[in-house]
Amino acid sequence: MTTNGTLGVAVIGTGKMGADHVRRIDAVISGARVAAVADIDGDRAEALAKTVEGCTAYTDPAAAMASPDVDAVLIASPGPAHEEALLTAFEHDLPVLCEKPLTPDPESALRVLEAEQRLGRRRVQVGFMRRFDSEYMRLKRTLAEGHLGRPLMLHCRHRNVSVHPYFTAEMLITDSVAHEMDCTRWLLEQEITAVTVLRPTPSSLSPEQLNDPQLVIFETDGGALVDVEIFGNCGFGYQVRTEAVCERGTARIGDDHGMFTNAAGRWGGEIAQDYVERFADAYDREVQQWVDATRRGEVVGPSAWDGYAVAAVSRAGVTAQATGRRTVVEMIERPAFYAPDRR
Amino acid sequence: MTTNGTLGVAVIGTGKMGADHVRRIDAVISGARVAAVADIDGDRAEALAKTVEGCTAYTDPAAAMASPDVDAVLIASPGPAHEEALLTAFEHDLPVLCEKPLTPDPESALRVLEAEQRLGRRRVQVGFMRRFDSEYMRLKRTLAEGHLGRPLMLHCRHRNVSVHPYFTAEMLITDSVAHEMDCTRWLLEQEITAVTVLRPTPSSLSPEQLNDPQLVIFETDGGALVDVEIFGNCGFGYQVRTEAVCERGTARIGDDHGMFTNAAGRWGGEIAQDYVERFADAYDREVQQWVDATRRGEVVGPSAWDGYAVAAVSRAGVTAQATGRRTVVEMIERPAFYAPDRR
Amino acid sequence: MTTNGTLGVAVIGTGKMGADHVRRIDAVISGARVAAVADIDGDRAEALAKTVEGCTAYTDPAAAMASPDVDAVLIASPGPAHEEALLTAFEHDLPVLCEKPLTPDPESALRVLEAEQRLGRRRVQVGFMRRFDSEYMRLKRTLAEGHLGRPLMLHCRHRNVSVHPYFTAEMLITDSVAHEMDCTRWLLEQEITAVTVLRPTPSSLSPEQLNDPQLVIFETDGGALVDVEIFGNCGFGYQVRTEAVCERGTARIGDDHGMFTNAAGRWGGEIAQDYVERFADAYDREVQQWVDATRRGEVVGPSAWDGYAVAAVSRAGVTAQATGRRTVVEMIERPAFYAPDRR
Amino acid sequence: MTTNGTLGVAVIGTGKMGADHVRRIDAVISGARVAAVADIDGDRAEALAKTVEGCTAYTDPAAAMASPDVDAVLIASPGPAHEEALLTAFEHDLPVLCEKPLTPDPESALRVLEAEQRLGRRRVQVGFMRRFDSEYMRLKRTLAEGHLGRPLMLHCRHRNVSVHPYFTAEMLITDSVAHEMDCTRWLLEQEITAVTVLRPTPSSLSPEQLNDPQLVIFETDGGALVDVEIFGNCGFGYQVRTEAVCERGTARIGDDHGMFTNAAGRWGGEIAQDYVERFADAYDREVQQWVDATRRGEVVGPSAWDGYAVAAVSRAGVTAQATGRRTVVEMIERPAFYAPDRR
Repeated sequence: MTTNGTLGVAVIGTGKMGADHVRRIDAVISGARVAAVADIDGDRAEALAKTVEGCTAYTDPAAAMASPDVDAVLIASPGPAHEEALLTAFEHDLPVLCEKPLTPDPESALRVLEAEQRLGRRRVQVGFMRRFDSEYMRLKRTLAEGHLGRPLMLHCRHRNVSVHPYFTAEMLITDSVAHEMDCTRWLLEQEITAVTVLRPTPSSLSPEQLNDPQLVIFETDGGALVDVEIFGNCGFGYQVRTEAVCERGTARIGDDHGMFTNAAGRWGGEIAQDYVERFADAYDREVQQWVDATRRGEVVGPSAWDGYAVAAVSRAGVTAQATGRRTVVEMIERPAFYAPDRR
Repeated sequence: MTTNGTLGVAVIGTGKMGADHVRRIDAVISGARVAAVADIDGDRAEALAKTVEGCTAYTDPAAAMASPDVDAVLIASPGPAHEEALLTAFEHDLPVLCEKPLTPDPESALRVLEAEQRLGRRRVQVGFMRRFDSEYMRLKRTLAEGHLGRPLMLHCRHRNVSVHPYFTAEMLITDSVAHEMDCTRWLLEQEITAVTVLRPTPSSLSPEQLNDPQLVIFETDGGALVDVEIFGNCGFGYQVRTEAVCERGTARIGDDHGMFTNAAGRWGGEIAQDYVERFADAYDREVQQWVDATRRGEVVGPSAWDGYAVAAVSRAGVTAQATGRRTVVEMIERPAFYAPDRR
Repeated sequence: MTTNGTLGVAVIGTGKMGADHVRRIDAVISGARVAAVADIDGDRAEALAKTVEGCTAYTDPAAAMASPDVDAVLIASPGPAHEEALLTAFEHDLPVLCEKPLTPDPESALRVLEAEQRLGRRRVQVGFMRRFDSEYMRLKRTLAEGHLGRPLMLHCRHRNVSVHPYFTAEMLITDSVAHEMDCTRWLLEQEITAVTVLRPTPSSLSPEQLNDPQLVIFETDGGALVDVEIFGNCGFGYQVRTEAVCERGTARIGDDHGMFTNAAGRWGGEIAQDYVERFADAYDREVQQWVDATRRGEVVGPSAWDGYAVAAVSRAGVTAQATGRRTVVEMIERPAFYAPDRR
Repeated sequence: MTTNGTLGVAVIGTGKMGADHVRRIDAVISGARVAAVADIDGDRAEALAKTVEGCTAYTDPAAAMASPDVDAVLIASPGPAHEEALLTAFEHDLPVLCEKPLTPDPESALRVLEAEQRLGRRRVQVGFMRRFDSEYMRLKRTLAEGHLGRPLMLHCRHRNVSVHPYFTAEMLITDSVAHEMDCTRWLLEQEITAVTVLRPTPSSLSPEQLNDPQLVIFETDGGALVDVEIFGNCGFGYQVRTEAVCERGTARIGDDHGMFTNAAGRWGGEIAQDYVERFADAYDREVQQWVDATRRGEVVGPSAWDGYAVAAVSRAGVTAQATGRRTVVEMIERPAFYAPDRR
């Protein structure tokens, strides 16, 4: 940590998400500054570095992490590059905020878990930002208070206006439903044990290969049942909803009822158009809490274990989608190192 | 009453409202039939009579009421014709459902009150249909239950898509806000003692003479304060809302949240476009309950006193609107004949 | 039909539902009267008959139907008695409104279909009252208008405060989800081809044998996917919701937002506590439209075919529930007699 | 500005609001640090200073402002102390964020305006935090876009669970409705020209001297009409609502629909219990934007003119409340120095 206590952060990856985090740390976050950015595309890194006072551009993540100005790492490079970046950060014993996915598959995620355990203490927070959304936090608190009784089912909706042309049916699971995997685990404090994927005849307005929308069903080791509507091209807005059905009542978030208008024969309001708009405050809160915890020498938030679990469930989901069959999730047992009470 | 117990009704006036009541009694209402219709416009009466089995057309209301098939009268002629029609019904000792207004001014309303008192028993129900709307009934019940404490204020909105070109500023009070006068008196069980009318610069989309919208304020003898936004040309829908502010909480009706859609970047629903749509069920319930009570030999619902009170408040409202001053309502004392517990 | 055109109705079965229909026809419905009631429990029939002028009590449904005062039959006896009552009505060539289920199993339903076809014209309307609920009608109209595009999924919730102690898991399908079977077929104009039943660990607040709640999934011959949460003991209210997810948007009904209150730290409203409260207007509209159509000599509304289809889907649902497996619905082909355009 | 660009802030006043700002600047705000705190109560200042690294406590605001570590001032002392603190800040040519009220009366506010004008450039932002609330910003943007047409009326609700025992009827105007004065001026970009205060019989649950609730009415120089329900002891929650009624539609904020629950016969959600909870994000955004603008050498947000205008309207409001009469607002003409396009 620098002498004045400000956390020097290296941001690895300067694409859309990385650039947004650079702006966030520079303009919004208290107690941190962007000390370095790294990207294979050196020009892009250079251009971004120039927007921040005292920030150096690198093409090699390892070099950035070796800088004496760097106290912590934020990984926002493409998923396949995460494992190497994480292991490098471990070598420098640097705390890491790693954008989801932790890594693209359970095997590489396991290697990260093992490497972190060898460090003897946790270093990684995974970027599941919904845990920092005020409505999700409210729902989590409500479930924890217990007035509604044990949660029995979650009904989830995850709708995008549209997805990129390169988006595949598989990515509906690994990129989109991955969020519901984490939310399910976090809200219920249970592991997902099996996945089933059901599909109606696809929307004629979605690309054909997408088989959009789909209904993904999770079973958990606590006996809960979760259904997720994933709709990549719903056309009307970005909408994320969860209703928890409990023994004595239900709780629902995601209705987006900020302002009502009456006009032209209709009452209602606007729907957010993308996740940046919907989860802006969640991203801010996520990074601020990471910075705060890091400055206190702590690691909080979703752990590498959470990243591994989502990778394992994603694999089952992809199989379930391809085969049309209920697919059991294969996971190692949770190491004591990642016990919840050690969070 | 006819031998088989079906109530034979004479409908006086065959304009929009009268024709709608004929259809209603014929097709929807249990225990009644349209025995006669009367209108100065004999052709119109004739044409309407033909739509109903066993219905006779008259040009003279008195002749219709004299028919042995007629057990009860529904007055839906223009307001200025009400007094004569009511007095004729009294001569035949027939029960009456009289569309609002009872009569157009307090003096004529008083004459009706006196004539009814001379009959020695109540014969008149006035057509304030909101009292039969399920949401208004729910609000009334909530206030009566008392959990929210004493009502302190009502905030009312009364919005029309547009009004007829012949509509005047005065009619905003006497035709439209008349409903809020009745609702205020009914919900609070208090009389209105003073009226003030305030106005913003009018909407450029309303006819100039209308001075639309306006804010009408009632004070009551129970110390409540009521504000009514009346907007004759709001453009977007027909919307009637009331929020009661009580000592321990508030209750609001009129949000029209029947079906939600998500489409084209917006969530929300459709707004009813006129009072026929908004209050269809209320009209049905009003007439059914009138028929039921009449067949039992009773008179329930808003009385001639309520009609008189609204006429008196309307007069104060028109003065307040013209002068810009708070205007005290002038009313006679409520005769024991119209005591609420005698309703 | 009697000379004055009033429809004389025989109500078969005088339990809760039958008694409610007797009250309805007597007090609410236009153009009909209760001419006869029949029940094995003669005392109960007698007591009910006394509440209506000119109504005769019978212990034998056939005797009631043979009465010259009877023009039409409303069957509200227990499901196992329906087949015989229907066939008797056919013998007298009487139009019938038959409470759901048409019959308890597809075989008996088929026999009814065949008997009706032998009559050469339709006589039966089945009592799926949701088709007459204003919100469901609004949803149906919205889907038909097509602005939202083709429906892809329905998300349904069906929650009861509690069910009777004798209620079984099987009845969750045959008694409760039967409504969603009909709504699905009616809203989408598609047949259900397969059923799957999934279950979380049951609520500890529900009777053990009930395995409550459950998630029932329908597939249709039009490629739609429907999920139904059925919760017999949700504890908080009677709540029926449907969200249709279409290619360009979604539409949702069932939020019950009639009156908002603010009190004691909470905003919101009351939830209906049973189906009689929630669907009161739907029952009224159903019976009124049946009476109106019958007096015109027509048969409209859900047909015996709809009753058979629900019996067939229910059987698949019960199998799916017992085996835990996706179960294909076995149905005969729709006879031309029951073609939709002949409705 | 310090060499590393971090803004050193002196917080004057260490009561509830001042302490909250110290915490905020220390933990949430990017680009600023608390360099000094000042309070007559030296112990309280001392205790607060200890919670922040590198923060010095003072009893004399002038001494704090004279510190070389101080680049900007946040005034959170009681209103009567504001004038002196502001003038001292001007002497040191320091930018100021001054909690509302600017000063307690128009005369002292005028002196501040004059002193700021003598500086030759603006230094003051007044702490009207609602302008930084996301819903208010959305409403402002909607009105500015113009699709709804010209705003004609605002209906405002301002409800507190309860107010302190020392709260007076006058403070309902000067402390509470002051926010609606600012919002009205900001949303409409018009000045308030007259105030009327109306009252029902007070709630029996409010302290007697409070005459709670009240209805305050503003007229503006643009012809708009604004009604404000101010309710100091509504008992159920902290609720701030505004509905703008425009020529083509209306827009409403403040419904607080974050999470819906179904439980115990009711649907709905929780109401925020105080302004700290309701406006937490607005305070954060306000201070962050002040820090950002200050570091850029700019002054944005509500100006001293806005503070003066609210003081002038408050005076008229207090007179209107005391006399029961419509009271004209007396204000100087807006100096060119405070022209909106110079904001």
